[in-house]
This record gives sequence, structure tokens and C-alpha cells, in this order.
Amino acid sequence: MIIVLKKGATDEQINHVASKLTEFGFQTHISKGTERTIIGAIGDERTLRDKPLSSIPGVEKVLPIVKPFKLVSKDFKAEPTVIDIKGIKIGGGNVAVMAGPCSVENRDMLFAIGKRVSEAGAKILRGGAFKPRSSPYAFQGLGVEGLKYLREVADEYGMLVITEMMDPRDMDDILKYTDIIQIGARNMQNFRLLRELGTIKTPVMLKRGLCATIKEFLMAAEYIAAGGNHQVILCERGIRTYETETRNTLDLSAVPVVQSNTHLPIIVDPSHGTGRRDCILPMAQAAVAAGADGVMIEVHNCPEDAMSDGDQSIVPDDFDILMKRMRVIAEAIGKKIS
Amino acid sequence: MIIVLKKGATDEQINHVASKLTEFGFQTHISKGTERTIIGAIGDERTLRDKPLSSIPGVEKVLPIVKPFKLVSKDFKAEPTVIDIKGIKIGGGNVAVMAGPCSVENRDMLFAIGKRVSEAGAKILRGGAFKPRSSPYAFQGLGVEGLKYLREVADEYGMLVITEMMDPRDMDDILKYTDIIQIGARNMQNFRLLRELGTIKTPVMLKRGLCATIKEFLMAAEYIAAGGNHQVILCERGIRTYETETRNTLDLSAVPVVQSNTHLPIIVDPSHGTGRRDCILPMAQAAVAAGADGVMIEVHNCPEDAMSDGDQSIVPDDFDILMKRMRVIAEAIGKKIS
Amino acid sequence: MIIVLKKGATDEQINHVASKLTEFGFQTHISKGTERTIIGAIGDERTLRDKPLSSIPGVEKVLPIVKPFKLVSKDFKAEPTVIDIKGIKIGGGNVAVMAGPCSVENRDMLFAIGKRVSEAGAKILRGGAFKPRSSPYAFQGLGVEGLKYLREVADEYGMLVITEMMDPRDMDDILKYTDIIQIGARNMQNFRLLRELGTIKTPVMLKRGLCATIKEFLMAAEYIAAGGNHQVILCERGIRTYETETRNTLDLSAVPVVQSNTHLPIIVDPSHGTGRRDCILPMAQAAVAAGADGVMIEVHNCPEDAMSDGDQSIVPDDFDILMKRMRVIAEAIGKKIS
Amino acid sequence: MIIVLKKGATDEQINHVASKLTEFGFQTHISKGTERTIIGAIGDERTLRDKPLSSIPGVEKVLPIVKPFKLVSKDFKAEPTVIDIKGIKIGGGNVAVMAGPCSVENRDMLFAIGKRVSEAGAKILRGGAFKPRSSPYAFQGLGVEGLKYLREVADEYGMLVITEMMDPRDMDDILKYTDIIQIGARNMQNFRLLRELGTIKTPVMLKRGLCATIKEFLMAAEYIAAGGNHQVILCERGIRTYETETRNTLDLSAVPVVQSNTHLPIIVDPSHGTGRRDCILPMAQAAVAAGADGVMIEVHNCPEDAMSDGDQSIVPDDFDILMKRMRVIAEAIGKKIS
Repeated sequence: MIIVLKKGATDEQINHVASKLTEFGFQTHISKGTERTIIGAIGDERTLRDKPLSSIPGVEKVLPIVKPFKLVSKDFKAEPTVIDIKGIKIGGGNVAVMAGPCSVENRDMLFAIGKRVSEAGAKILRGGAFKPRSSPYAFQGLGVEGLKYLREVADEYGMLVITEMMDPRDMDDILKYTDIIQIGARNMQNFRLLRELGTIKTPVMLKRGLCATIKEFLMAAEYIAAGGNHQVILCERGIRTYETETRNTLDLSAVPVVQSNTHLPIIVDPSHGTGRRDCILPMAQAAVAAGADGVMIEVHNCPEDAMSDGDQSIVPDDFDILMKRMRVIAEAIGKKIS
Repeated sequence: MIIVLKKGATDEQINHVASKLTEFGFQTHISKGTERTIIGAIGDERTLRDKPLSSIPGVEKVLPIVKPFKLVSKDFKAEPTVIDIKGIKIGGGNVAVMAGPCSVENRDMLFAIGKRVSEAGAKILRGGAFKPRSSPYAFQGLGVEGLKYLREVADEYGMLVITEMMDPRDMDDILKYTDIIQIGARNMQNFRLLRELGTIKTPVMLKRGLCATIKEFLMAAEYIAAGGNHQVILCERGIRTYETETRNTLDLSAVPVVQSNTHLPIIVDPSHGTGRRDCILPMAQAAVAAGADGVMIEVHNCPEDAMSDGDQSIVPDDFDILMKRMRVIAEAIGKKIS
Repeated sequence: MIIVLKKGATDEQINHVASKLTEFGFQTHISKGTERTIIGAIGDERTLRDKPLSSIPGVEKVLPIVKPFKLVSKDFKAEPTVIDIKGIKIGGGNVAVMAGPCSVENRDMLFAIGKRVSEAGAKILRGGAFKPRSSPYAFQGLGVEGLKYLREVADEYGMLVITEMMDPRDMDDILKYTDIIQIGARNMQNFRLLRELGTIKTPVMLKRGLCATIKEFLMAAEYIAAGGNHQVILCERGIRTYETETRNTLDLSAVPVVQSNTHLPIIVDPSHGTGRRDCILPMAQAAVAAGADGVMIEVHNCPEDAMSDGDQSIVPDDFDILMKRMRVIAEAIGKKIS
Repeated sequence: MIIVLKKGATDEQINHVASKLTEFGFQTHISKGTERTIIGAIGDERTLRDKPLSSIPGVEKVLPIVKPFKLVSKDFKAEPTVIDIKGIKIGGGNVAVMAGPCSVENRDMLFAIGKRVSEAGAKILRGGAFKPRSSPYAFQGLGVEGLKYLREVADEYGMLVITEMMDPRDMDDILKYTDIIQIGARNMQNFRLLRELGTIKTPVMLKRGLCATIKEFLMAAEYIAAGGNHQVILCERGIRTYETETRNTLDLSAVPVVQSNTHLPIIVDPSHGTGRRDCILPMAQAAVAAGADGVMIEVHNCPEDAMSDGDQSIVPDDFDILMKRMRVIAEAIGKKIS
């Protein structure tokens, strides 16, 4: 950590900062430049992050040198993590396709959609049983009944199940039926929940918060890893910006940036990321071209009757086209659809 | 609701949209303009919000006419809600001052700070017992022990207690010791939690999410009100923007905008809203001048030793100055510090 | 246009709004819904946009029905515009590649880079002669001398020239040497400049402002078209968001959104859009996969010695790899590199 | 400047970076920490800002120590600049009030409004003669005729004139009639224009760009100062965020932040900053309470007939109330309305 002192900081102030650093267990190195005096603190910087160093009189700013996350960083593990669930792989050249309806509405629709996405080549079935809804008056999901349908359909077509957990009190139910637990954008900084996810063995897909920086996103993954669960899949799903033509702004550059920082796989959700059907194919193709380790796509056989997110679901015929294109694009950059 | 059809929408498409609306229980009114055909849907618009109308072929866009929230709106109740707890009032001309440390660190510091803020005129003691921390390696709060200290100090100085709840599983503990439950920005859209807050009688202070629109903020309050708890205090605490000189951008214009939409009181937290000590006094003064129903201020007797948020806490002497100024400013606009 | 009246608007207020609309030349249609009265204004909505309708007592909000732009809209011209300059095509299935250094630094470097990008297949040479620099103390470009080198190198390799104009007083000079005039993000709303661009015949590439909405972007193109110059190429180059890992956030979803609104071609600049060398290849590939009509890439033979933007330039060898990948990706979605 | 090297950077890379720095005229200081090697570059950091240091192999990131601006910084001049024009003062405890219509529409309306704002105590008359309009079809201002009316009215009531310049080719005309030249948000980074403003003697009011950081804002002021004109007034007028209830988000915390960085005065424009009449009084009061050196307010005698920005103008009666409140608030923090 580098502590920059204010112009005109007194020797007494400089010494006070240095002695505080020594007290925290750091070696210090004072250097007087042409305009500012700086103090280098040598030691494990992560333990200093939390200290109110800027509050010490004479301090102008504090510059961290290393990243705040550790276990999930490439410094810790250079080669990409490949998550392998029942032989289906995510990461390290394997592009995973997750597809299915926004909400599980009933058993029949799930069978119909599951069949089509499976035939097109998707290996992971998505579907919400517990739904976070911004209106208290909207459909909130089928709950455990929805989980059972997901398992049944996935088993029928040899797929994995991914579904969202909103509340830690549902964990036992969800663990019974799912292969991957999805944590929604709104819970990305639900730190208690993250801590509990660290204690299980089931892989977790963590969605980026609507206004989370990439650093905060990786810190949230660190929370889970710090608890002992290293099977974390990251998911870019759009961030909030001033642009209103799309529901969110899908930050595809997060893919290469995340990959330069962590060994964990990152997938992309263009459905929530844009909220517009006409953007799904272009952005899913773009995600694969940008090097994403997977995509998550909302597919519905009759979007105008969907009980949630119909506006951003594509129909099975379009999903077929998309799968064909993604195969070619993945190959063009040396990857393959898993 | 107004449904705008695409240029060149066919009669069949128009009729299909109209019949869908009829099916949903709405009367329709078709109107052909110079460039577009539009359909007005007459009925309780809130039940239509959830339908994927944009998914229907021929639909270009959907324009809502009324606001999505109801119970918290000024349409529902025109006069401002005054929340009265043990005679201390928030709202309707009464400007409440909440002050205290970020975290409760120990009994002594809390007594020392409580004494000073109480002497200066603050009537509500703040302090965190359960702390949401973005690093898994940081101080997480004293838990129930912290709650006890808060109650003890507040009782000693005739103050109310406000403290944050992060997890619904802590609710029983927290209800025992607090007068107002604070819901942090990261939980503003934790819909399960909001639903449970609707079932209790204790007033709730709901902080605006870091990237929540004012509409979403009011919808979150609607969740609590819809459950039966109408004692909700809103709190503007800064939104995330591209500016990095301040930790967040305190959106003070949210104060008049919220007040034009809802009868609920709104207070301002300049400490989290800016993250900089040198901004606290100016922005707390500005909040009162903008008509806020209160402010929440972090005060610490030795910020450089604070276990959290020291960089954004002011010292008791500055708090004294602030109180004096806020009294004059409140009076200038016809209000008073409660 | 739909004018929504406040709850409890009086008949007098309603009639006053209606008479104002009549005065502006519009037919009106008053409709009383369950919660609000609305007035439909029938006529050319674009002439109403400018009127302070919300200022009229009793008005709650004003909802436009049609888009504010006209000449550039798909309503006006459904088929995509193909810009053909000396046989090199941009738009309508033709993906244009613009490449070259950020600034023209000297004749030799431009020849060296021009040769490499031309051999790899780029048909349009980019390079700045007049540079907008955020520091008054930084290199500001070679001016007319730089323009001459651009022309010379482009002619040698059979390429077109694109270069930025910052000031209308440079127009005569620039028109002498360039095939496409580039308007930078900071000038997207320099309305006087836009107006003058409408009076020339040279194609214009208009970059999206750092915080311009897609609507504002298209309105800026409308300014040029309204003056008579319909040869406008749009360029997405990143928007400002809270994320700081990349210099800007490249909004690739703008590609399909723009294409659903206008017949004009849109290209993508991943160099300025991300500001990071390791993002250029992924994001250029993604742009093509998303359906962009072209890309603009900064290439420098020795980035560490570049006089501007070295951090976001790629070397010629990487450009070769990129061209190969973009060819395959373009083909996968039914397009070709022009 | 601190250069942080990548984990595992080789000695050769370290030496190459150091030799580059030496070549640029800097002394270097290499320091090996527990996780990273860093190199301190000692010398005038501003000349290094422009170099593509991150492009050098082995470099992870570059951390500046000092601010990029110099002449406008508090390091350069500690006491606040007071701009004194014909005895009317801006800055250093003097709160300037600028008021008038958005556009000068005709002579009569300007006299009527000028009279009222002058009687209420405003000393500076605002009004647009050249208007930047986002639609090519909207009213663009009266031009030189508008300038003449401004001068005439201001002289009648003993006021100063402030008006916007959009194009440097209008400078001679504008200099004849105005006391302060206003540079709009869209021109904040029109670097050629800024450079020319440095060569004149008339004070300049520079508005913050819609997505300009405070650093960029101060760098734009530095451009003018670097040319020799040190009479620069800064103006916060709202930034673009995701919130759409207000046209922009007025960033009032910019006031204390700017004041901690520069000696130049900063005023606030709540009319453009919010775009809503009901926010003008609250936010103007808040601006003064936050310590702003002035406010700029749009006042119109009949907003519903205004030719531009009627929705954000207040009527003279409200302006009277505002002036009274601002006087009390200014006094509460030890300032006075000038």
C-alpha cells in the first residue's frame, strides 16, 4: 500500500502515519518526491484495506498495490478452473449452454421447452421456482413443486439443473433437486448468504449485481471461496447505465477483464442483460466471440403468454439457429460448445 | 396503459392485441393517429404491468399511465405521514437527527459518543451490530452484544435506537432492542425480507439501493406496506455513478422528487452518500435545505481508530457545529429539528 | 402525443390543455380512465416536442408516441443504407475494417503500419492529424502535414482515409485529403458543426457521445441528414459507466438496437471503447458477431512508444489473427468483410 | 508516479521499465514488496501522464501521485479566487445569483423578467442568444439581436450579463455585449475553444460536462488557465445517471469536492441540473447550504409559453421566496448573497 501525504504534511504527521503502520505490523519506507512525500507499507496489504488510513491527519490518499481478492485470483491459481458436473464441463475451452424458461409455470410447458433446447444441444436446463419480483402483486413462482419439475425434465433429457436460491432458508429444498445453485444479481452482496454457500459442495453460479464493479463481483466470489467452496461460476448479466433502450447494458468487456483477473469461468446472460428479444441472438453470439465460457438463454414456446419475462425470451426455432451459429463462432476462436 | 403498434401493423394484429386486453379484463379504445395506431386499455393498470404485452406481434411499445406503487403514493394519502415513536416525530415538518458510530465497537465508546450526540440534540442513536462488509476478512460486528449496548446507551440518554438487520433470522433478537429497523441498500430488493417486514409493527427505515431508481425505491416500500406495516421511513444514501471522487453520488434531488410521489418521510445519509468526511457537513446542511425529513450522521470520537467507515465519520465537535447550522436552515424553510 | 393529467385535474385545466393543443394545430381526443384523464394529440408530434406542455397547470406527464428522429429512421427508409466509396462498401452485409494508428506521428511509421493493415485486408486507413487531448500539455497532432501522409499512404495501398475533424475551420483542409470525416464523441452534440456537415457531400462517421443515449445519437445523425448529407456512418465507442476496469463500457447491444431504429450502418471501435489492449480482439470479434457493419481498430507497430493511446493499440501480428477470426465470424451470420 | 509490475515480472522487464523512465528524465526507485515489485518515478509527473507506460511488458498498472491539473489547484494557490466584475463579487464568501430566462425570446419579456429578478436582488442577468438544441427542428435563438437586448436590460437594472458561446466564430460579437462568457456542458471538452478562451480577458463560466468527472472538469479549467485567463467560474449543472425522474442528477457533493481541489469559485445550476420546476427551490437552497459560490436560476414570467426549457423555469414570485431563504441560509454558514 502507498500512502500519499498532503503537500505540507509535517514531520510529526509523517511519523504518526508511519508509527500507525508499524503498529498494524507493516514495515514502512518513506520517500520524498518533488511534490509529495509517500510512505510505502510493506506486508500483507489485505489486512490494511479495512483501516481508516485516510482519517489520519496529513494523509491525502491511499493507493492499494494488489487486488483485494486472493483465492479467486490468477495469482493464486494460473490455469483456468474447469467445473465438471456429471461429465458436463464449464470453463477452459468448454462453452456451456444453459437454456429454459424464466419461470417454471407448469410441468407440460417445461417438458415441451426442455425437449426442444435439449435437441438443439443445450446441456443445462434453467428455470425459476422461487422468483424475485419487483412488484408484490406479481407471480412469485411455484416453489418446491417447480424444483421437482425441473429435476424430472432434466433427468428425462440427460441435462443438469440450474435454479435460483433467494433465501438461505430454502437451501435444503433446493440442494435436493439442483446441480448448480444460481445466486441472483440482487443477492450478489448478501454476505450472509455467500458465507453459507461457502460451506456446501454444490457449484454456485453468481450473477453480477446491477451496479457491481468487477472488483466487487470477484470479492463476492472470494466470500464463497473463503468458506471452502471453490466451484464458482460467474455470470455477467448487464449493469445499470443511463441507457434505457435496453433494460440493462450488457458489459461484454467484463468477459476478457474477468478472465485476466480470475481462474473462474464466466458466462453471459443476454436475456436479462438486454431485456429485448431482438438483442438475444446478436448478444449471445457476441458473448461466445468475446470468449465467454457459456451463455444462459431464456426460451419459451409462447412468449406472449409467459408468466414472467416473456419480452426477453426467444422461441425454440430461434434457439436452433443460435446454437448453429455459436458452434461456428466458438470454433473460430479455438473453443467448443460443451 | 397505452399500447403503441408498429407502423404497418395489420388489422389482424391490432385485433389480436385488443382481444388479449379484453381477455385480461380491460376495456379497449383503438385510435389511429397520423403515424401510429394506439390502443388504450382501460382498467386497473397495475394488473397489466406484469404481462408480456411487448411480445405480442405488432406491438412497438407499452406506455404506463399511472405509477406502479399504490399504498405509498400521494394519490392514496395526500397528507405527509408523521411517524411518532415515544413522542419523537419524523416527517411533516419534523426533521429527525440520527447519529452515532458506524459500528458498535464496545460499550465505552458507545457511551462516550451517545453522550455527545445527545447533548448536541440528536434524539436517535444509530450503530451497527450486524455489519455487511464487502470483504470476508473484515470486522463483521458484535451481534447481539452490540444491540444490548445500543439499548443501554439510548435509554441512558432518552434516545431511540436504530440499527440494521441483514438477515430475517436475526429479527427476533433485533426487535427486542431497537425502535427502528434499518434495511441497508444491498437489501432494498430482498423481497422475502420486505415481505416479512410487512408483518411486524416496528417502523422500518429503508435505504435506497445503490442503483435503485426512485420508482423501484418506492416499490420496495410498497412491498412492506402491502404486508400491513405502513411505518416506513425512506433514506437516500447515494447512488452509484461514474464519479469516483466520492464513494457514491448523493442524489439530493431525490428528496423533492420522493416527496412529490409519496406521503412517507425521507431522510438523508451523507456519510455513506459521500464517503468523505469533508462532505458531511455541507451535504447534511444541504439535505435539510432541500427539505429532507431528517439526516443520519456517523459520529466517532476517534475516526482514525474506527473499526469501520472511519473515513466518513465526523468528530463530536463538528457535530455540534452542524446541529447549530441545521437548526437555522430548518427554520428558514419552515421546519424544525425534532 | 399523450398528455396525462394529474389526479383531480379540473375541467377548466383539461380544457386549457386541449385549447393549447388546438392552438398548436393538433386535434385532441380526451379520454377518462379509471385513475387519470388523458388527452391524445393528433398531428405531427415532432413539432410538439419542443413545447413546455408539462408546465401547463394540471399536466402530470407527457408521453411521446413516435421517435424524435425522422430521416434516419427505418420508418422513413426500410432497407439498410450501403455507403459505397470508390467501390468499398459499408453496411448491408458488408463489414468494413478501419485500421491504423491513433495519431499520425510521422511518415515512416504510417507507411509501416499502413502496409501491414492493408496486407491483412483492411481497406480503410485511420489516423489522427488533429487530436482532442484532455491535457493542454499533451501532443496535439501534426495537423495538415498528418493529413498529407494519410492520403499518401492510403493511395499507395489502395485504401480510403478516415480522419477526425475537431473544428469547422479545418474543414477545407480536411476535405482535400480524406474520404470519410470522423466526428469524435465530444463533438457529437456540437450542433453548429453537425449543421455544416449536412451541407457537404463527403461521408461522415459520427461517434456516439460518452453519455449519449441511442436516441440522442440518432438525433445527431438527423441533424446531418436534415442538412442534406445522408451518408452517415454511426460508431459505437463506449459509454461512461461506473465501471473503471475499462476506460469506457462498450455498449455492443447498441448494434442491434440501432439497427432496429435506423437504416444507417453502425460500426464499433473497441480500442476507445475499452482502452485496454487485452480487450481489443475479444470485443472486435464480438462486434462482428453482434452484427456490426464494421470495426475500427488502433494498430501500432510499437505501442510502448506511441505518442497517444499506446495502451489500447494492438500490434500488426495480432491484427492478422483478428482479421482471420472476423472473416469466419462474419460468414457464420451471413455477412462478409468488405 | 508509481509503476506496479506484474507478479513474476523478470529482471529484464524491470530494468527496461526503469531505463524508459530514465530516458523520460525521471529518477527511479525500485522496491520489492511481498507480492509485487514497484518502481517510483521521481520528477514532474505531469509529463509522464501521456506516456503509454502500461504498454511496456511486465507493467501491471500505473498509479499517479499528484493531480493532473496545476494552475487551478489549491497547491498552486491556497486562498479562494474572488472574481470581481464592476464591483460584483463571486467566490470567497460571496454568493452570486444569476437569473433570467432560458432563451431571450424578445425585448419585452426580457425587460419584464429582468426587472423582477433585479428587484429580488439578483445581480447577474442570464439569457441565451445562441441555443444548443438537440433537435434540428427547434428554436435556435435570436443571435446578435438577443445579445443586444441582454445588454440593454442589464444596463437598465445595473446588472452583469452572462450568455453562452457555442462557436468560437461568434466570439467577437459576444465579447461586445457580455460580462461573463458561459461555456455549455457540451463544449466542456471542446479543446480548441478552451484554448481560445485562454487568450481573452473576459471571465468564463465553464459548465461541467454531462459525464465529466471532477478531474476532467478541472482539467478543462486548466486549459483556459494555461492560456492565460485565470478568471474561470465553474458550474455544476447535473450529471447523467440511470435515474430518469430528473433530467440529470445534480451532484451537489461536487461543491465541497471541487472546493477542496481548486481555488476557483463554483456555482450551481439547479434548473438544468434537475429539469423539474418543483426541484428548483429545494436544490437552490441546498446548493447554498452546501457552500456553493452562487446559483444560476431560470426565471420566466409565463413558463407554459416559453420557447425553451419552460418545464424547468420558475415564476418571479417563487424567485422572491427563494432569494429570501437563500439569504438566511448563506448567513447560517458564514456567507452572504453578493
